[in-house]
Amino acid sequence: MPINRRFTLVRRPVGMPVDADFSLVSETAPALEEGQFLLRNHYASLDPAMRGWMDDRPSYMPPIRLGDPIRASTLGVVAESRNPDFPVGAWASGLGGIEDYTLHQRGSGRLIDPQALPSVTNYLSLFGGVGPTAYLGLLDVGQPKAGDTVLVSGAAGGVGSLVGQIAKIKGCRTVGIAGGPRKCERLLRDYGYDAAIDYRGKSAEELTAAIREAAPDGVDVQFENVGGIILDAGLMTLNPKARVVLCGLISQYNSEPVPVNNLWQLIVKGARIEGFIMTQYAHRIAEAVPELSNWLKEGKLRIDEHIEAGIENALPAFLRLFEGTNEGKMILKLA
Amino acid sequence: MPINRRFTLVRRPVGMPVDADFSLVSETAPALEEGQFLLRNHYASLDPAMRGWMDDRPSYMPPIRLGDPIRASTLGVVAESRNPDFPVGAWASGLGGIEDYTLHQRGSGRLIDPQALPSVTNYLSLFGGVGPTAYLGLLDVGQPKAGDTVLVSGAAGGVGSLVGQIAKIKGCRTVGIAGGPRKCERLLRDYGYDAAIDYRGKSAEELTAAIREAAPDGVDVQFENVGGIILDAGLMTLNPKARVVLCGLISQYNSEPVPVNNLWQLIVKGARIEGFIMTQYAHRIAEAVPELSNWLKEGKLRIDEHIEAGIENALPAFLRLFEGTNEGKMILKLA
Repeated sequence: MPINRRFTLVRRPVGMPVDADFSLVSETAPALEEGQFLLRNHYASLDPAMRGWMDDRPSYMPPIRLGDPIRASTLGVVAESRNPDFPVGAWASGLGGIEDYTLHQRGSGRLIDPQALPSVTNYLSLFGGVGPTAYLGLLDVGQPKAGDTVLVSGAAGGVGSLVGQIAKIKGCRTVGIAGGPRKCERLLRDYGYDAAIDYRGKSAEELTAAIREAAPDGVDVQFENVGGIILDAGLMTLNPKARVVLCGLISQYNSEPVPVNNLWQLIVKGARIEGFIMTQYAHRIAEAVPELSNWLKEGKLRIDEHIEAGIENALPAFLRLFEGTNEGKMILKLA
Repeated sequence: MPINRRFTLVRRPVGMPVDADFSLVSETAPALEEGQFLLRNHYASLDPAMRGWMDDRPSYMPPIRLGDPIRASTLGVVAESRNPDFPVGAWASGLGGIEDYTLHQRGSGRLIDPQALPSVTNYLSLFGGVGPTAYLGLLDVGQPKAGDTVLVSGAAGGVGSLVGQIAKIKGCRTVGIAGGPRKCERLLRDYGYDAAIDYRGKSAEELTAAIREAAPDGVDVQFENVGGIILDAGLMTLNPKARVVLCGLISQYNSEPVPVNNLWQLIVKGARIEGFIMTQYAHRIAEAVPELSNWLKEGKLRIDEHIEAGIENALPAFLRLFEGTNEGKMILKLA
């Protein structure tokens, strides 16, 4: 039986996670029962939502149990199998953990073709939750029309960079918000944003003024990944009947909720904020995948991946998401 | 020319309006031009939204100009006319002001039949904005299905009391939130709520616990008139795909916005908050009116009106809305 190193949760983080919240343990991988297979994880997706799973509060998924590995989407190669659908040596992906090996029950995991996309890691940076979230969140909840102005926060991130590009493909004007001049340069150069706003050092009022300047016709769709004063500032710039896609609130995942003050704008604009959660759209991923794949192959989508190697680097790599020091979709290489 | 007493805005209120923000002036009513008519106002509707019109900030209607009368929906009798559609002696309603006489331009105002409803004031307490707001806000934005649980704040107010009754007609379970035992008794006795919650003295957490107890299956539609901790508490009890109809935020019309902390619930529930503003639904009032009229005549809707008399009482009558001391739709009798 192979040795399985697992990055486990041993204490629920208060605020920003620290080393003592986790333990890297080595166990013997379990013997398989009929229908199971063991996936040797090569890559794990690191996503802001994982922070929420570490808390003990009611959510769309149960909290990670203390002692269990940190839940993550992974992909890798089948190492052992008692499930004929997943032969040894095949590539597969699924919801696993930050660990060398994930035991998949019957019905869990799916086969992938490692040659079908430019890089096998695109299964995490374009598929997994990221691409379908950007695609369905923007198009289904945001309902942009050609000519609309789409405002994106976290605009250089894994989801945000795709949202900006999909909105451009659909004929929208795109305004991206990100932290720091380097990211803002990437918004304009790499993701085709029409305007970029650096939120750092700006008050809510200054941010509102900057959005108004970048979006002189107002904002029709706000794709929100951040929350706090960025959400508040965007609310002040909405057009009548605007749609705010609430995809993430990364500004508050490690702190008390950042209060939002400008909800009254929803009334005077007849606008809405709608939460997007991938679990409610699982049956529609099949709509998103072919178009995203084609756009990627046709060179219409640029994907940046920020890959760090080694399970011992799981925490610093994960924290980059909250420090804003990742440059592209954050992925941990495990093998 | 008749003397026109007008309750005018002379200073923009900071917080709760005070006497010095207003002036009661007497002017000679203007001579009519072709197409105009002069309405002798008998009743004026007093609504929380009027507070917003006193502020100088961008909204769905221009702010009331200093020196102008307080904008209000009124009804009365045509006193003079150079518009053949509005003969002298006819009853009419329209967007006017708290003043004895309102000059209506061509295209403004509409005739009403004072015998068509049990009381002519029902044109303000059931029509005007109130009934169509309750009807279209609940049914169009909230989309309740039979068996859904509908949570209403400001549940004893002009809009809220109708929302609760319409939701019952549509087969929903209704939970009302109001201030004080007297109002809660009215919720159960007069408006058919299945459960009533007194928000006074409760923290957000206590309010959440009370809602959970009253709505054991969770909340499918939250019709929000109040905001602040009531909105926050409701957000914690939403079911997946729930709809929050944001109709009013009366808790913050005279103070700084009350911050909302629990927007993250929209993500984990895939739920939405949608602002309702009557101006975007003007073309659909005709859908609401016949059904509301029939329900009223059939005794399926109970309407309570709180009528105070005299233009000199305009401010204390208006302030009852924020003190919560009105018992029914607030109306000012002018003649």
